[in-house]
Amino acid sequence: MDYRPINFRQKLALFDDRWAPKVLAELNDYQFKIVKLEGDFIWHDHQDTDEAFIVLEGELRIDFRDGAVTIGAGEMFVVPKGVEHKPYAAREVKMLLIEPRGTPNTGDQGGERTAANDVWI
Amino acid sequence: MDYRPINFRQKLALFDDRWAPKVLAELNDYQFKIVKLEGDFIWHDHQDTDEAFIVLEGELRIDFRDGAVTIGAGEMFVVPKGVEHKPYAAREVKMLLIEPRGTPNTGDQGGERTAANDVWI
Repeated sequence: MDYRPINFRQKLALFDDRWAPKVLAELNDYQFKIVKLEGDFIWHDHQDTDEAFIVLEGELRIDFRDGAVTIGAGEMFVVPKGVEHKPYAAREVKMLLIEPRGTPNTGDQGGERTAANDVWI
Repeated sequence: MDYRPINFRQKLALFDDRWAPKVLAELNDYQFKIVKLEGDFIWHDHQDTDEAFIVLEGELRIDFRDGAVTIGAGEMFVVPKGVEHKPYAAREVKMLLIEPRGTPNTGDQGGERTAANDVWI
């Protein structure tokens, strides 16, 4: 086994594309992914799983059909399974996603914003 | 549903006991716990699950039978299931633990350092 920690800043320096989560680590059948967001995403939901967001830098807004949450650096939020949501970042956001291996970023909606899955960094 | 983010600093201000993880949120059958560590813990392992550590403040060392890893703020590490480990914090460490609901802090070893489980904050 590898006795080195995973450093978020070092990993963030390795890529610059937005909305393309990269896998950092696995916890059983869950994955920790790091991602940069900027601008608007699509409405989607994940019928089979909750989805956890931890913001490292910036401010992420997640819109719901009946409201919104704003998540800043040092904050987290869990979107329950089946709840439609749309992430929005007015400026660049750097964050972690934690969810089961194989969860697509566009949920059950798919489409052109669907990122490649299981891309490690 | 509650549209407020979970703020780590706010939660950390609510308690001061060490080695007593508090649950912040659930992701399916996994829990995000926040904990303060200081000093030495016991050797233990978790036969049935990996265990993820994300350090928020301070520097955590985890000893293994054949080495050690040092995890600083903004870093994470996953201890694989079945691997004996002993956390150590020379000074106070504030961190997140992510693991399945019901995972005891002392793993399969138990004993007097076993913290109450499923304590929410």
